Amino acid sequence: MSLNPQYEEIGKGFVQQYYAIFDDPANRANVVNFYSATDSFMTFEGHQIQGAPKILEKVQSLSFQKITRVITTVDSQPTFDGGVLINVLGRLQCDDDPPHAFSQVFFLKANAGTFFVAHDIFRLNIHNSA
Amino acid sequence: MSLNPQYEEIGKGFVQQYYAIFDDPANRANVVNFYSATDSFMTFEGHQIQGAPKILEKVQSLSFQKITRVITTVDSQPTFDGGVLINVLGRLQCDDDPPHAFSQVFFLKANAGTFFVAHDIFRLNIHNSA
Repeated sequence: MSLNPQYEEIGKGFVQQYYAIFDDPANRANVVNFYSATDSFMTFEGHQIQGAPKILEKVQSLSFQKITRVITTVDSQPTFDGGVLINVLGRLQCDDDPPHAFSQVFFLKANAGTFFVAHDIFRLNIHNSA
Repeated sequence: MSLNPQYEEIGKGFVQQYYAIFDDPANRANVVNFYSATDSFMTFEGHQIQGAPKILEKVQSLSFQKITRVITTVDSQPTFDGGVLINVLGRLQCDDDPPHAFSQVFFLKANAGTFFVAHDIFRLNIHNSA
C-alpha cells in the first residue's frame, strides 16, 4: 500500500456522499454501510463506540429529522497505508434548532479496492464562537 | 501492533506537551521534533506540506509571538496499528488579535516505543460562530 494520489477527490467525494445519506431522515440508517462490523470507531460528542451494530444504534437514536448543513472546509491527507484522513468543518441546523458549528474527522481505510470509515469523531462546537 | 489501551492518556498528554512547546515563542521551533523527516504531513489553513524541514520552515514563518490557548475538547481513538488519532477543539488568541476558535487533528504513529506526528491538520474556524 502507498499514498493514494486521489486523496483530495476521495475526501471531497466521500463527504458529499456521506452527508447526502446522513442528512436524509429516510436514508440515514444506510450510513452504517460505510462502517466495519468490528473495526470502526465512532466518538460522538465524547462518547466512544465500536463496530457497525453500535454505530447504527447510535444513528437510529438521533431524534432530529431534517438537517440543513453547510460545509465550510474539507481538508484531506493521504496515509501511507492507502487511506485518507479527512477533517470537515461546517455548520448544521437540526429541525428548528439554532445553527451550530460542527467538526467531524473521518479516517477512510482502504480495503479490497474500496474504503470504510475506520475512525469517526464528531463534535458540535457550541462554545467556540470567536 | 494492536490497539493501545492508553490512547486516552497518550492523546491528552501529547496535546498538553505539544502546545506547551508551540505556544512558547522561545521554544516553538522545537515542535519539529514531533515530526518525521519524510513521513509527516501538515495541512495548515488548507496548505499541505510534507516532512519535518518544511514543517519547521512553516512554524518559523509564523509572525505572532504570544499564544493564549484554551482547550475545549480532546477526543482520542486508538488505531489498529498502535497509533492514536486526536481531535482538538478550542480557542486561541495570538498576541493582541481577537480570539478565534481552532480545530487541530493529530495522528500519532507508533514507532520504536514512541510516537511521531504522521498527520496534522490545523484550521482557524473564524466563520463558524453559531
